[in-house]
Amino acid sequence: MAMSQFMLFSNCAGSFVFNNNYKLRDKILYKSNKEIIECCRMIENNKETPIEKHLLKKYHAVKAEMDKFSNISKEMEEFIPLMHKNSIIATKNKVKESVKEDLMIVQAICNVDEIDKTSNIMAKRLREWYSYYLPEFSDSMPDNEKFVEITIKKGKNDLLREMHLDSENSMGADLPKEDVDEMIELAKTIQEMYRLREKHTKYLERIMDRLCPNLTAIAGVLIGAKLFSIAGSLEKLSKMPGSTIQVLGAEKAFFRHLKTGAKPPKYGFLINHPAVTNADRKDKGKAARMVADKLAIAAKVDFFRGDFIGDKLRKMIEKRFGWKSP
Amino acid sequence: MAMSQFMLFSNCAGSFVFNNNYKLRDKILYKSNKEIIECCRMIENNKETPIEKHLLKKYHAVKAEMDKFSNISKEMEEFIPLMHKNSIIATKNKVKESVKEDLMIVQAICNVDEIDKTSNIMAKRLREWYSYYLPEFSDSMPDNEKFVEITIKKGKNDLLREMHLDSENSMGADLPKEDVDEMIELAKTIQEMYRLREKHTKYLERIMDRLCPNLTAIAGVLIGAKLFSIAGSLEKLSKMPGSTIQVLGAEKAFFRHLKTGAKPPKYGFLINHPAVTNADRKDKGKAARMVADKLAIAAKVDFFRGDFIGDKLRKMIEKRFGWKSP
Repeated sequence: MAMSQFMLFSNCAGSFVFNNNYKLRDKILYKSNKEIIECCRMIENNKETPIEKHLLKKYHAVKAEMDKFSNISKEMEEFIPLMHKNSIIATKNKVKESVKEDLMIVQAICNVDEIDKTSNIMAKRLREWYSYYLPEFSDSMPDNEKFVEITIKKGKNDLLREMHLDSENSMGADLPKEDVDEMIELAKTIQEMYRLREKHTKYLERIMDRLCPNLTAIAGVLIGAKLFSIAGSLEKLSKMPGSTIQVLGAEKAFFRHLKTGAKPPKYGFLINHPAVTNADRKDKGKAARMVADKLAIAAKVDFFRGDFIGDKLRKMIEKRFGWKSP
Repeated sequence: MAMSQFMLFSNCAGSFVFNNNYKLRDKILYKSNKEIIECCRMIENNKETPIEKHLLKKYHAVKAEMDKFSNISKEMEEFIPLMHKNSIIATKNKVKESVKEDLMIVQAICNVDEIDKTSNIMAKRLREWYSYYLPEFSDSMPDNEKFVEITIKKGKNDLLREMHLDSENSMGADLPKEDVDEMIELAKTIQEMYRLREKHTKYLERIMDRLCPNLTAIAGVLIGAKLFSIAGSLEKLSKMPGSTIQVLGAEKAFFRHLKTGAKPPKYGFLINHPAVTNADRKDKGKAARMVADKLAIAAKVDFFRGDFIGDKLRKMIEKRFGWKSP
């Protein structure tokens, strides 16, 4: 104790100097947010200032010595409102920093799912509505996206000609332009949604190539992002074993298996993976297992920022299941 | 019988001339769709050609005479494929003519409902996503439409200034432009949906003012259109008593009432009618009943194309319940 006449004590309110008798001698209060955050980070990282280590030692050795610590507490009491205020600043900063690219992926893929759902509802309405005008067209065009596109581009007469019908043979009513315009407006809005979906997909491609190139190389953007959204983050995904990844997206069937002993699901989101889709019926489970295993490796490599081995892993799957990647 | 040496028989295949022995003497086959449709309409409207009336009379008098009719049938047999073809043309035309403005109203209001639902889903997603960027803003702006509008218009710094916050106090992350752009794109698509909803509302206003001015004067466009969509057409709505109109939109509660004897619903869609909304709690049922009664009258007047009495009916409600129409 004799070797240090003064002791330094820091918290997020500021730095304080105490003498041998634990009386406050001097202080510097933090003013800028940067100072506060820097100090909080130091404390977190266990870079404790000398006095704290010293007190900790004492605490283990002689508990009675802790009375002296309470002196410091008493001295510090007047700075408690400041500590409270600064703690809030530091916490807000923590919240701010917790937003990672993982979350952007989750939001974007959830939105892609929602766009799929909502654009389907609206495309169905357009089909119903447009069928009063030209019922033959809806049947001849099962693809919603193309249906919407052609509705905007081409008039009734063009479409009739393409279907080799004349207007007298069509069951559609001759609606005034006012009514048709409303349908075209609806179609344009749906097209806007498809455009947004494409934008989101490209955006996902960009951030996933940066954040998890190995995972993306094997799973593709959309399946990769879906696995992400269920796991919540790359960190959580990297901690999952292959067997868990295999059934992500099939939670309902999986828990039914655990509860009632029904057959376990063979795959969740991976059902849309080309290696699984193209496998024979009896091999689908095997393919899903292999893809999931490689994905588990890829997620770990991505999380610890390893080299790019996605192409090698993918080739192993290709070799085994004859899946040709595009 | 002696007075007519030849008899004329028409169906949708053509007009046929028979002699006294019911042998075919001459024929004109219909070629253009117009001729076919005209003929079908004639037959429907009971403007039967002489021979048919004649046969009908015979049928009632002496059934044995009908053998002669079967002669005609036999003669006609070769024209059956033509009849079949022409019947299809006439039927298609019927289908074509069955599309009335009623259906447009139903489609438009259903679409407005769906836009409400889908735009809400997407606005919720935007709020969640945008909150990573600027969490303080979402709480301060409960209205979705305004939230979307301001998100597009204003940058983060403008918004922070408006909320008297500096960027260090905000919990939002400083996201790169790439991420923010995706959110703005989403907001733009939602705005597109709001724009479409407004267009549809104006369109509904136009056709409803034309088709059912009395109904619209009392119920307003959106409630009127909803009543329409449940009833299916103006004709069906005009046949409903006021008590049915009162509970349209509350089918679930109404059938629960019939089944279990629970309390009957007081109103369905009419809950949003200003006279009901503004009435005291205990008067809401009375207001709904009065509005429904006047709507029943209005629907009947509209269907039979009577004079405009909507303003008179509305004033009666206003007088009784102090509802001021806008």
